[in-house]
Amino acid sequence: MEIYSDSYFMNEAMKMAKIAFEENEIPVGAIIVCRNKIIAKAYNQTEMLTDVTAHAEILAITSAENALGAKYLTECKMYVTLEPCVMCAGACFWAQLGEIHYAASDPKRGFSRISENLLHPRTIVKSGMMAEESKQLLDDFFKKLRN
Amino acid sequence: MEIYSDSYFMNEAMKMAKIAFEENEIPVGAIIVCRNKIIAKAYNQTEMLTDVTAHAEILAITSAENALGAKYLTECKMYVTLEPCVMCAGACFWAQLGEIHYAASDPKRGFSRISENLLHPRTIVKSGMMAEESKQLLDDFFKKLRN
Repeated sequence: MEIYSDSYFMNEAMKMAKIAFEENEIPVGAIIVCRNKIIAKAYNQTEMLTDVTAHAEILAITSAENALGAKYLTECKMYVTLEPCVMCAGACFWAQLGEIHYAASDPKRGFSRISENLLHPRTIVKSGMMAEESKQLLDDFFKKLRN
Repeated sequence: MEIYSDSYFMNEAMKMAKIAFEENEIPVGAIIVCRNKIIAKAYNQTEMLTDVTAHAEILAITSAENALGAKYLTECKMYVTLEPCVMCAGACFWAQLGEIHYAASDPKRGFSRISENLLHPRTIVKSGMMAEESKQLLDDFFKKLRN
């Protein structure tokens, strides 16, 4: 079996963020990987669904749990292009995610501005991979929105 | 038009919690009211849907936003039988809920143990109505689970 790298998976999350961009959604993408296999892909759909809870991470967790038929994602890794908000960190807590890799930080709405303890104590957090590319996509989106 | 009281609406939320109890879900119910009319009713369905995000509040917000065709619930009140967790408080923040009335406090997982500021600054919070009845239902549920 081919073993994929973290950067491969983050790039897959970036592809989801780019789909969100094309669909006029705030461009955030998330994927969930279990034993080197992508089991869920999602992008922010709050506008399309008229639903503030339809963040990429929430949709990805729902989808991954359905794929596994299990409520806990302790063996799974999430790759997400933006630091999760408080709501999504809370969802990651309940899912007991094994690892979270996020690209860009979110100084305004990211969970870590409140407390690192919003996540499950066993969740490993890594950040910064492809952060510049993710931030550029977000900046481009808000520039497009203003014009 | 008949004007209903807060206790009427909280009792409707309790009815949803009792349905959850019967369906072997942690018994939490939530309703959302807009201009004196119930526009969403939900109960915790995490087991049935195998989805940790399927808390009563998340389902109620999704449903209310669909009913109104709007992402913001600034004119709405949520009545929920247990203090929202961090995830649900984050969802209430994004929805900019006008008011949240919760019955029982949740000293272990309630949002207020982290920070009152998880909610939107304009959201009015009231608590304690029917708290005993809600706590009793939860205690009965966990007693049933242990047996």
